[in-house]
Amino acid sequence: MRVFIAGIDGYLGWSLAQYLTSRGHEVAGADLFLRRRWVEEMGSWSAVPIVSMRERREAFQAQYRKPLLFWEGDLREYGFVEKAFREFQPDAIVHLGECPSAPYSMVDVGHAVFVQTNNIVTTFNLLFAMHDVRPEAHLVKLGTMGEYGTPNVDIPEGFFEIEYRGRKDRLPFPRQAGSWYHWSKVHGSNNIMFACRVYGLRATDIMQGVVFGTRIEHMGDDDRLLTRLDFDQAFGTAINRFCCQAVIGHPLTPFGKGHQRRGFLPLRDSMQCLTRALENPPQAAEYRVFNQFEEVYDVTELALKVQKVAARLGLDVEVRNLENPRKELEEHYYKPDHRHLLDLGYQPTHDVESEMQIMLKDLMRFRDRIAAKKEVLIPDVRWDGTRRKVSFIGQPEALAAREQ
Amino acid sequence: MRVFIAGIDGYLGWSLAQYLTSRGHEVAGADLFLRRRWVEEMGSWSAVPIVSMRERREAFQAQYRKPLLFWEGDLREYGFVEKAFREFQPDAIVHLGECPSAPYSMVDVGHAVFVQTNNIVTTFNLLFAMHDVRPEAHLVKLGTMGEYGTPNVDIPEGFFEIEYRGRKDRLPFPRQAGSWYHWSKVHGSNNIMFACRVYGLRATDIMQGVVFGTRIEHMGDDDRLLTRLDFDQAFGTAINRFCCQAVIGHPLTPFGKGHQRRGFLPLRDSMQCLTRALENPPQAAEYRVFNQFEEVYDVTELALKVQKVAARLGLDVEVRNLENPRKELEEHYYKPDHRHLLDLGYQPTHDVESEMQIMLKDLMRFRDRIAAKKEVLIPDVRWDGTRRKVSFIGQPEALAAREQ
Repeated sequence: MRVFIAGIDGYLGWSLAQYLTSRGHEVAGADLFLRRRWVEEMGSWSAVPIVSMRERREAFQAQYRKPLLFWEGDLREYGFVEKAFREFQPDAIVHLGECPSAPYSMVDVGHAVFVQTNNIVTTFNLLFAMHDVRPEAHLVKLGTMGEYGTPNVDIPEGFFEIEYRGRKDRLPFPRQAGSWYHWSKVHGSNNIMFACRVYGLRATDIMQGVVFGTRIEHMGDDDRLLTRLDFDQAFGTAINRFCCQAVIGHPLTPFGKGHQRRGFLPLRDSMQCLTRALENPPQAAEYRVFNQFEEVYDVTELALKVQKVAARLGLDVEVRNLENPRKELEEHYYKPDHRHLLDLGYQPTHDVESEMQIMLKDLMRFRDRIAAKKEVLIPDVRWDGTRRKVSFIGQPEALAAREQ
Repeated sequence: MRVFIAGIDGYLGWSLAQYLTSRGHEVAGADLFLRRRWVEEMGSWSAVPIVSMRERREAFQAQYRKPLLFWEGDLREYGFVEKAFREFQPDAIVHLGECPSAPYSMVDVGHAVFVQTNNIVTTFNLLFAMHDVRPEAHLVKLGTMGEYGTPNVDIPEGFFEIEYRGRKDRLPFPRQAGSWYHWSKVHGSNNIMFACRVYGLRATDIMQGVVFGTRIEHMGDDDRLLTRLDFDQAFGTAINRFCCQAVIGHPLTPFGKGHQRRGFLPLRDSMQCLTRALENPPQAAEYRVFNQFEEVYDVTELALKVQKVAARLGLDVEVRNLENPRKELEEHYYKPDHRHLLDLGYQPTHDVESEMQIMLKDLMRFRDRIAAKKEVLIPDVRWDGTRRKVSFIGQPEALAAREQ
């Protein structure tokens, strides 16, 4: 299968290029390297050093014995996307070319506008290039579990059957996102659902949980094949950030009460799931939604796991809660379905602690890089539109929980 | 009350400026005159001739004995919006500065991207200017009943209480819009709901039905005070278009089977409703949704009413169904609530036929302008992304219905 990866230089994109190639698929991709610039703008860099795309492609060629087709350019320009599609004739497109950060989108009006327009326009261009060039191709779009928010009812996979005032219908499940970024994903989901209806396109919309992990096995011993790993407030996600904190002896920092519950999955599971979706495409005009995560965890529970695994490696760190810069429920009901991918054969990596151990070992090699930027571990982008560093909370809930 | 009208040169904006002024409010507005350009791009013009903003303001001054504050500029530029807010210090903002056409948004990728980014960015800039300059102000945002689509259940006003798998919650009612334009309104609704939550802003989101009418009484005898009225495929709405067709003897053209049901309201009711919303603002951080229409009508029923009223004026026209350029249900359940505005004292104009008679008389003066552009009465923008004129349907449903 010919798979076009939009955003191939990113955390998931660079990993997926290798995973799919090792499965025998033909991969090509595009990127404008904006992620590298956004992280720099947040005063940070990838904990794992990454090389230029030229060097990445050399290492790729050496490892997989085939070249990696690549277009440098702007997915917000329709002509660029259309040209790449005409040249490559993809059977499937994975859209990882969006700005994936909630805090980045909450900085100010300029960032809110940038994130939403970037994410909407890149998605439009991919949809229309499919319509114009490859109407049979399959779009795999990365959404987020964050589209749903935290309703007080179970979360189905995209749609639900309801009875309302004595009549029945199958409707899209209401979305209640928690940042301009998360709403951009909702807007994208809505646009894709409609494109499938009017243009007969086929798409899988992945409501992905929080991904963690430094590698997939295919990356082997060549550091040039490693993917980026961010730990700043905007692009670092929970477990990744906790592991970076652990290797430099910084407290692990759940926000607020720390009982937010979210779906999580290791990087290797994300690759496996995306591949299951790609290898089992939907019908023409079908729009399907997968909730993609291994299991739901409480954020404090995960911080305590990282603490435990770190201790095994001789790293002594405490868990200290931070004032929450976000507006979100810190204790809530959370029960999302995630049946579709299991039905397609997804085999979850249930051993989260082993995965954390691999991560910590990888990251210990790069502790100087993390220590050099450690000020980015404490957020200052607040959901009320101001920018002020948050403080540690007097009696951390996490410690209180531990003492029980 | 100081009311800022974004898009004050448009069909609703120009009418609202006069309605609010006659109620004693202080009105100001901004516009970039894009609507005039879009209609020109569609090969058309307003049936009712409209003068320049300079002349409009002169007529306004003469009629209402006060100047109309006006900024010409681009609402997509944050600095422009912020400056206008700092100068005018609005108590309320009515957002009519969006591109309001479904067919225009369906032309091609460029139009889809333009409509969604224009509508999202203008809304963001108004929200952030409120946040930065006037956090107590009230945003009245024009959405559309089309956000809901045509579900097989009743449509509440924005939110509904559901029970799902034995648990309960109050959730946003699912949206199923029918064009890129309608989805842009959904994206806007979602963004505004979130802005109220995180920034404590207050907003009324108006799910408006299809508006018809050539005037409100305040416009008096000065033609310079009349508002525009469009009849092209993109900016002309159902009853307005039927009346324009009637005055030049062109068949009235429901699409497909012609039994689409929609909420409709006269221009004077739209003004009354918007004013009720403005004069009864929500609480801080409150996001409320009003379904704004007089009554639900079947499109063919309305065509037959126009035909009947036209006959009284000596205009003999037939109703002939056209192939439907859209993808939409042509026969469906439709039962939207519309209680909130009635609770605020909205008094509906139930006499649709009298309103049609006023319209036909107004439009008969301008029949030459309509006849000169009559080719725009038959659509060519199709929902599958192609552009081909639609044809008349063999045995028109409307006529069949009439013969029974």
